[in-house]
Amino acid sequence: MSVDLSSGSIVSSKVYQGHGFPMLTFGEQARASQLPFSHQPFLESLKKRGLNESEVLCACFTIGWFGEAKTKRNVKVKCYYANGTANLYARPVEGVAALVDLDDMKVLDYNDRYVVPVPLPKAEATEYRASKLKPPFGPKLKPIAVSQHDGPGFSIHAHTVSWANWNFHVGFDIRAGPIISLASIFDLHKQKHRQVLYRGFISELFVPYQDPTEEWYYTTYFDCGEYGFGQSMSSLQPLTDCPPNAAFLDAYYAASDGTPVKIANAFCIFERYAGDIMWRHTEISLPNEVITEVRSDVSLVVRIVSTVGNYDYVIDWEFKPSGSIKFGVGLTGILGIKGGAYTNTDQIREDIYGTLLADNTIGVYHDHFFTYYLDLDIDGEANSFVKSNLETVRVKDHSTPRKSHWTVVSETAKTEADARINLGLKPSELLVVNPNKKTKQGNIIGYRLLPGPAARPLLITDDYPQIRAAFTNYNVWVTPYNKSEKWVGGSYVDRSRGDDTLASWSLRDREIENKDIVLWYTMGFHHVPSQEDFPVMPTLSGGFELRPTNFFESNPVLKTKSPNYVQWPNCTSQH
Amino acid sequence: MSVDLSSGSIVSSKVYQGHGFPMLTFGEQARASQLPFSHQPFLESLKKRGLNESEVLCACFTIGWFGEAKTKRNVKVKCYYANGTANLYARPVEGVAALVDLDDMKVLDYNDRYVVPVPLPKAEATEYRASKLKPPFGPKLKPIAVSQHDGPGFSIHAHTVSWANWNFHVGFDIRAGPIISLASIFDLHKQKHRQVLYRGFISELFVPYQDPTEEWYYTTYFDCGEYGFGQSMSSLQPLTDCPPNAAFLDAYYAASDGTPVKIANAFCIFERYAGDIMWRHTEISLPNEVITEVRSDVSLVVRIVSTVGNYDYVIDWEFKPSGSIKFGVGLTGILGIKGGAYTNTDQIREDIYGTLLADNTIGVYHDHFFTYYLDLDIDGEANSFVKSNLETVRVKDHSTPRKSHWTVVSETAKTEADARINLGLKPSELLVVNPNKKTKQGNIIGYRLLPGPAARPLLITDDYPQIRAAFTNYNVWVTPYNKSEKWVGGSYVDRSRGDDTLASWSLRDREIENKDIVLWYTMGFHHVPSQEDFPVMPTLSGGFELRPTNFFESNPVLKTKSPNYVQWPNCTSQH
Repeated sequence: MSVDLSSGSIVSSKVYQGHGFPMLTFGEQARASQLPFSHQPFLESLKKRGLNESEVLCACFTIGWFGEAKTKRNVKVKCYYANGTANLYARPVEGVAALVDLDDMKVLDYNDRYVVPVPLPKAEATEYRASKLKPPFGPKLKPIAVSQHDGPGFSIHAHTVSWANWNFHVGFDIRAGPIISLASIFDLHKQKHRQVLYRGFISELFVPYQDPTEEWYYTTYFDCGEYGFGQSMSSLQPLTDCPPNAAFLDAYYAASDGTPVKIANAFCIFERYAGDIMWRHTEISLPNEVITEVRSDVSLVVRIVSTVGNYDYVIDWEFKPSGSIKFGVGLTGILGIKGGAYTNTDQIREDIYGTLLADNTIGVYHDHFFTYYLDLDIDGEANSFVKSNLETVRVKDHSTPRKSHWTVVSETAKTEADARINLGLKPSELLVVNPNKKTKQGNIIGYRLLPGPAARPLLITDDYPQIRAAFTNYNVWVTPYNKSEKWVGGSYVDRSRGDDTLASWSLRDREIENKDIVLWYTMGFHHVPSQEDFPVMPTLSGGFELRPTNFFESNPVLKTKSPNYVQWPNCTSQH
Repeated sequence: MSVDLSSGSIVSSKVYQGHGFPMLTFGEQARASQLPFSHQPFLESLKKRGLNESEVLCACFTIGWFGEAKTKRNVKVKCYYANGTANLYARPVEGVAALVDLDDMKVLDYNDRYVVPVPLPKAEATEYRASKLKPPFGPKLKPIAVSQHDGPGFSIHAHTVSWANWNFHVGFDIRAGPIISLASIFDLHKQKHRQVLYRGFISELFVPYQDPTEEWYYTTYFDCGEYGFGQSMSSLQPLTDCPPNAAFLDAYYAASDGTPVKIANAFCIFERYAGDIMWRHTEISLPNEVITEVRSDVSLVVRIVSTVGNYDYVIDWEFKPSGSIKFGVGLTGILGIKGGAYTNTDQIREDIYGTLLADNTIGVYHDHFFTYYLDLDIDGEANSFVKSNLETVRVKDHSTPRKSHWTVVSETAKTEADARINLGLKPSELLVVNPNKKTKQGNIIGYRLLPGPAARPLLITDDYPQIRAAFTNYNVWVTPYNKSEKWVGGSYVDRSRGDDTLASWSLRDREIENKDIVLWYTMGFHHVPSQEDFPVMPTLSGGFELRPTNFFESNPVLKTKSPNYVQWPNCTSQH
C-alpha cells in the first residue's frame, strides 16, 4: 500500500500478486529464532547432544525456491552452541533444522537427521575476542596514525559531501545500504562542476553455497533482497574500522512496527593517505638539471560495513582527485561452517563440499557476486555504451617489418543485447560516453570501467538458484533507465522464481543508445576456504574503478599541489 | 670474462657467441645521443624546421630484430625539442632518425622523411612543473600525514629488514631493480620463522608499441634487458614519493668504465596505514551484548621508481602481517608520443595507431607486460605447483533439490607443460605447495596466486617482437630452478632472436613436481591513451597477491592487536 504522509491519504492499495516476498525484518527473525525453544522435539535433540539449552542460539535462513508450485513465507531455523565462545557460527548443531512460517510465526516441520550426532568443534579454537585469547599475542604493530593538522578537507552538509573537486550525496537504504548520488566533479579548465554519477548502489549480493546436502542446498543468499544489506549495517568502531581522521554519519530505518531504528556511526568518511603517488616524472635528459615532480595522492573514502550474519563486508566508495571512483570490497568475518566427524583429511573418502579447517569444522565452498547498479550521467543524462575492442591487425603488404599490431575498433551498443558481456573473453575497454559531447580534440567524452575479479557463476543456468540469480549470467549489462528496475533480482527476492530479474527485463532488448542508461556490473569471487580463514577471516579485497577517459581535456590533477607536510615538534603524547 | 677479484685471476675467458647484446649503458647512450649534432644532414633537418639546435635533445632507442641475418649493436637516435618545456617527450622531431653503431660509436645511416615537416606540439600545453604552470591551481588538498609516535616498527641491518612477523633481504640489481630474497614469516603457533620466498624480482618488462610505421615499428622495449630497470631507478623524493615515516636505502652500480654510481634514496621502506581493516566481526546474536572486534591493518612497503625514459614505474612490495605479499605496479610519467598534423579527430581518415591527445600530439597504443620471477620456497625448497580447478558438478540422481554445485578438483603439475596457463579461461586457484608438509588437519601447506590484470599479447606469435617476448605467451609458467634461467627473455636481450627465452627453455618439458621450482607470472596492461594521460599521466595501478593457503594452522593475525592510537595535544606545528 502506498500512503501519502502529507495528506494522510492512501495513494494506492494495489496488492502485489507475483511471486516472492519482501525482506525479512530483524523483529520477525528474532521471534522465529525463539520458536524451537518451545518445540519439544528440538529440546530432545539438545538433550540427546548433551547441550545446555541456555547456550543454544538459533538464526533464520532463507530457503530459496526449488520448483515448488506454491510458496509460503517460510524459513529454516538452524542453531548454534555458543557455550564458551562468541563464535557461534563455528559451532553449528548439525542435523537439526526447523521449518518456520514467518506469517503464522510457527514451526511447520522439524527434523533431526542424526541418531548419533557429530561432535561439535571445541569452543576454544573458535574464539576471536582479544579478551578471551591466551598469549602469546602478536605480531606486534607499533602505533601509527594519520593526522590532519588543519582538520579534514571535506565538509558535510546534511548528507551532501564536498571534498577537493568532488560533490556527492550519501544516502541510506535498508535494502541496498549506501546509495551515492549526484556525484559531480569540478573541472578546473571549464570552471564548472560536471556530472558523473546520478546514482549508484549495490543492488544485490548473491552468495550461493556449494553443498547440495540436506541443510545446505538452499543456502543461496540474496543478502540485499532477503536480509537487507542496509538493515545489516554495523556501527563502525572509531580508530579501528576507520582511521582517526574519519567523520561519521548515522542511519535510520523503520522496524517492522514502524519504530525508527538508529544505526550509530553507520558510515564513516575520511581522507585516505596511503603513501601512494598521484603522478610523477623524473627527467634526467635535460642539461645540467634533474627534474623530479611528484604529487602524492589523497582520496576520499565513504565506508560502511554490513554484517550479514556471519560475514562482514567492508564496502568502500573512494573518490580520487583525478576523477576516478574506486569501488572497494573487503570480505571478512566468519565463514559459513558445517560440522563434521572429520579431524584429518586422510579420513575423508567423499566430497565434503568444503575445506577441513579445524577438528570437526568444514568451511563450505561458496561464491560472492556483488552486482552494482551504476546510473552514470556522464556530463549529462543521454549516454551510450561503447565497447572499444582491441583487435589484432595482420600486416600482409610488407609496408613494415612488423607482421602485426593491435588497434581499437569501437562499437556503440544499440540495444541491450549488444551490451551483455562476460569479462576476460575479449580484450576491450568498456565505456559509458556522452555521444553529444566531444573534447576540443574531438574525442567523445566518457568514463571507462576497469573491472575487478570477474568470477562467473558455475551453477548450470537452469538450476533454481541460478534462475533466480540469472542477472549474474553476465558480468556487464546495460539497460535504459526505468524507475521500476532497481533491484536486479526483482522487487521481492525471498523465494522468488526469477521471473522479475535483470535477465528477464533485458529480454525486451530495448534501445540504449544516447539515452539515460544504467550500467550493471557484477564483481565475483569464488571462495575455497583455507585454514587461515578460521576462526575469523583476514580481509580478502577486491575492487574496480570508473576512470575518466577523454572526459577532461587533459590531466585534471596536473595543477594539484601535494598536501603540505606538517611536522609537530615538542608534543606530549597521550596513549 | 669472469674475474676472481680476491685472487686477481681470470676464471673464464669464454666469449659469448650467441645472438643478442648486453644492456645499453648510460654512458654510451649519452655519447650516441650527441652524434647527430656533428652529422651535417641532421643539422640541416633542424634548420629546415626552424629549430634552435641548443634546445634539441636526442635519445637512444633499441631496434629489436626483424629477421635480419646479421645484427650489430645498433640503436636509433631520435630527437625532441625541449624549447620552453621540461616535457621533451611531448615534442618529438618527427621524420628524423639516425642509425648509430654503439660499438664504433658512429652514425651509420640518417634519414629525414619529411619535405614539409609536421608542426611540433606547443611547449606550453606540455609543461608539468608546478613552477611553470599558471593559475588556477587545484584541486586543493589539506595537509595530511602519517605519524609514528614511537618511531618505525621495522629495523634495517645492512639490507635485511625485520618487521612485525616478516624478515627479508632487499637487494639491488642493475637490470632487475629490486630483488627481494630470503623472505620468511614468524609463525606464532609454531614459534619459528618459516620460509616463503627464496628470491623474487621483475625479470622483464616488455613494452611493445602498436604503430607499425617507420619510426615506431621497432619500438618494442625490453626495459630490464635493454635499458636496465635498476640502472633507470630514480632517487625517491621524501614526503611525496614516500610518506614521512619512510626510511631510505641507496643503491650502487658500476658505470661502463667501472666507476661506482650511486642512486641516492633508491628504495624507500615504510609502514603503510591506509585505514584498511585487517579483520573484523560484529556479533549481534548473543544475548545482552553486541560484540565488535576489529583489527586495523598495517603493512610494510618496499618501493622503488624506475623511470625508463618517458615512463615512470612505481613498484611496491607490500608485506602483510596476515602472510600475504602484495605486488603493486603503478604506471605514471609521460606517454610515448608521436607528432602529427592533426588537431581534431574529424580530420582523421586513417588509423593513427593512437589517441589524439592534444594539437599535433598522438599517444601511441602500447602494452606493458611485467614478468615476475618468483622462486618460492614454501616452508622448504621442494615445492609443487597445483591447479585447483573449480568444476561444475551436475546432480542427476535427485539426491538434492539442487541441479548443480561446484567442487575443487586439484591437479599437481608433473612437468612444465602442465603449468603453462592463460588466466581467465578456466576458474581455478593456482598454488605453490610443499607436498612434503601438511597442516595438523592434513591440508597441504601452500601459497596461492591471486592474479592481477591478465592482458595477453595481441601480436601474432610469429611476429618478431613476439618471438623475442614469447615468454608472454602464457601468464603463468613454472620451471625447475636453474641457475642460468634468470632472465626470461634471455641473457642478452638487445637485438635477441628469441632462441634463449623461457618459452625455449620450457620446451624441454622438465619435471617440476616436488622440486625447487620457479613461478613466472606475467601481469599485463593494454594501454589506449586518453587525454587525461597528457601531459603527465595520473597513476594507473594494478597488482597481484601471494596469499597463504593452509600454510598456517589458523588465522595468523588472530592474536594481533591493533596498533595503539596516539593523540598529540599541545603541539606547535611547523609548515
